[in-house]
Amino acid sequence: MAGERLTQGLGELADERVDHRFKALPPDAEGLTVGELAAERRNLFTGGFTTPVLALAADSVEHNLALMETYSTRHGLAFAPHGKTCMAPQLFARQLEHGAWGITAAVPHQARVYRTFGIQRIFLANEVVDPAGLRWLAGELAADPDFRFVCYVDSLRGIELMDVALREAGAVRPVDVVIELGAGEGARTGVRTEAECLELADAIAGVDTLRLVGVAGYEGEVPDADTERVTAWLRRLVSLAVELDKAGRFADLDQIVVSAGGSAWFDTVAEVFEQLPELSAPVLKLLRSGAYVSHDDGHYRNLTPFNRIPQEGALQPAFRLWAQVVSRPTPEQAFLNAGKRDAAYDLHLPRAQVVRSGRDGTERPADGLTVTKLSDQHAWLTTERSGDVEVGDWVGLGLSHPCTSFDKWQLIPLVERDGTVTDFIRTFF
Amino acid sequence: MAGERLTQGLGELADERVDHRFKALPPDAEGLTVGELAAERRNLFTGGFTTPVLALAADSVEHNLALMETYSTRHGLAFAPHGKTCMAPQLFARQLEHGAWGITAAVPHQARVYRTFGIQRIFLANEVVDPAGLRWLAGELAADPDFRFVCYVDSLRGIELMDVALREAGAVRPVDVVIELGAGEGARTGVRTEAECLELADAIAGVDTLRLVGVAGYEGEVPDADTERVTAWLRRLVSLAVELDKAGRFADLDQIVVSAGGSAWFDTVAEVFEQLPELSAPVLKLLRSGAYVSHDDGHYRNLTPFNRIPQEGALQPAFRLWAQVVSRPTPEQAFLNAGKRDAAYDLHLPRAQVVRSGRDGTERPADGLTVTKLSDQHAWLTTERSGDVEVGDWVGLGLSHPCTSFDKWQLIPLVERDGTVTDFIRTFF
Repeated sequence: MAGERLTQGLGELADERVDHRFKALPPDAEGLTVGELAAERRNLFTGGFTTPVLALAADSVEHNLALMETYSTRHGLAFAPHGKTCMAPQLFARQLEHGAWGITAAVPHQARVYRTFGIQRIFLANEVVDPAGLRWLAGELAADPDFRFVCYVDSLRGIELMDVALREAGAVRPVDVVIELGAGEGARTGVRTEAECLELADAIAGVDTLRLVGVAGYEGEVPDADTERVTAWLRRLVSLAVELDKAGRFADLDQIVVSAGGSAWFDTVAEVFEQLPELSAPVLKLLRSGAYVSHDDGHYRNLTPFNRIPQEGALQPAFRLWAQVVSRPTPEQAFLNAGKRDAAYDLHLPRAQVVRSGRDGTERPADGLTVTKLSDQHAWLTTERSGDVEVGDWVGLGLSHPCTSFDKWQLIPLVERDGTVTDFIRTFF
Repeated sequence: MAGERLTQGLGELADERVDHRFKALPPDAEGLTVGELAAERRNLFTGGFTTPVLALAADSVEHNLALMETYSTRHGLAFAPHGKTCMAPQLFARQLEHGAWGITAAVPHQARVYRTFGIQRIFLANEVVDPAGLRWLAGELAADPDFRFVCYVDSLRGIELMDVALREAGAVRPVDVVIELGAGEGARTGVRTEAECLELADAIAGVDTLRLVGVAGYEGEVPDADTERVTAWLRRLVSLAVELDKAGRFADLDQIVVSAGGSAWFDTVAEVFEQLPELSAPVLKLLRSGAYVSHDDGHYRNLTPFNRIPQEGALQPAFRLWAQVVSRPTPEQAFLNAGKRDAAYDLHLPRAQVVRSGRDGTERPADGLTVTKLSDQHAWLTTERSGDVEVGDWVGLGLSHPCTSFDKWQLIPLVERDGTVTDFIRTFF
């Protein structure tokens, strides 16, 4: 049933019309469906795509999907990849095929997209106190007894607001919540002390509309994070689960949830979670990394745990943004037709990787080219030699931060090594 | 005919279904059309909208539309507001109703959106050397003799690439181009010297596929811009027009185009363009400011020329991003459920302006609240007093940079002073 809804949703995506909504798609494909255009197997460089165009490497995505499946299985972790990264139901479907338990969300709107595509297990790694969002959630839970949803709580006021909103919405089954343990003083959301966590557990037990099912947090926000500090915080999280269990807070559960794990420390999460003692019910050790699906050429290339555990594999950066040189006003300057509207710019600027000649389509390394600035619709390049690049050349850029790369594109060509576009990934931001 | 296409396009926007594609829209409005939801005149705060939600103040937009119409008329300027800012056909329609000559674009994809909505005059303030984009353009020009299009050239290679692409596309009428004069050494695109401009004019005259119709540039990129330097560069631009005219380069035209003017220096543009001597044909003095339509609470609040000419009026910031406090882990910290996915962050962080109580809906100034950081889906707030804000409160944020505010929202509620939502602005990024 759930699978059917997902299959149907993906079918509807393939039936969408290619039109002005989707930048970079070939203007001469106007009127075709996405599925029909994919079936034409056009070439990214010669098939009528306009620049700039973001390409997602099909084989790298497959590699990354398989690697994280292997990794989580090997370490006894359930996996709910963070869907906020890509917001792409087609990738969610592939993640579920690769064994994911469910998909993580950050806000109710994202969960709404997931539900439209029949995602049956959603872990919302954030507090939700919005009455309109909770009303929608109560409706979803009432309509589908198989829908599993978990979100965070970290305050008494939040519990009160959830309870009021859910009662007003006539909720027919309680919302499962986990207590979020903050990652330290000055860190992001989450309760700062274990004493407060126990208070929240009492408060949750006092309302019919919520059910405490475990603990969670985000080690990525541990201040001055290093292996030692992240390990220490994860041990606090695990101890909190043990303490709540001993206090009988998980007495009626058939599964206890313990969740952590972004894209920078999942090796440490795996290590600490492996030491989790037996609790009164089986434990769902839930990892939530999301950036792995595309990986990147910047932030996560530097931070990925696979740098510390190369024996377990390596993720592949799957994005390349192709932009065209439109201006070459001096021997030291060149300008591309891609800017803040097209490329991630919050953590690092894009990096020039390869030049594809506008004359003959040959590719060469982007020696001497450096992106120094982005305008809304231009990338500023400095060049070392006047022959480095000319007007009309395409420049392939590596990006840093998958989340702010995906969110600038609504339909992303999925490309094989030789440039053949085999599908288009639809995003919903 | 053109007006019909725009009217029809706007009608189709009103007939779009409200669904999971549009964040913040009320989940219980699923299945209504945008027009039907607008007709319900729901309240932004109590009508089922989820947080975060970006609101555009209807009266401020109207004020800004009228002010720039008055301004350009008073100064004898034609106006092609830059559409890259909002990419919203409904706002384009209002701009045209307010006397705009046409709409400016930055890349062919934007022009494609404009053409879908029947925009008849497009000034593309950038170089275009993409064969696929030029093929599309040739088709549009061939299909509609009333379609007026102008774009930049700034290199011999660019002229060559345009000519080849347009000939291969079987272009039936030449593409109108203006020579872009760069704003100085180290500035963005555009020819650096007048001598090179004359060379380009020769080259344009040598191909059948292009027609030189004037000169243009962007004073916003003048290095270390101040009134003196911007004036000096604008005088160079005007002199270039005069020189090309004297050289007979505009001999066959019934209109010569001279264009400049972003959102920071249009007073200086107006002043210098008023001094333009008579040329061999009437001159279209084309201003291209785009940010004015929403204005902002940061970058353009600081830079708007109306700060120098208060006697001519003042723009009003029209955006307010509403987000909800979801976590209050310490007396010094609070977290909102809006982040990089929702707010502009490239020039300044959002500023907390007002708090709307989660208990009784009363509003108060956001005293003591400072946004210090954005995560993907969270805003980090520091607070001075524990009573400043509590979980459940809504915080109204002012934004800096209209371009990177619009582009994070696909359907934006247009709101009256009392919170009544009267329409929804659709964007196409």
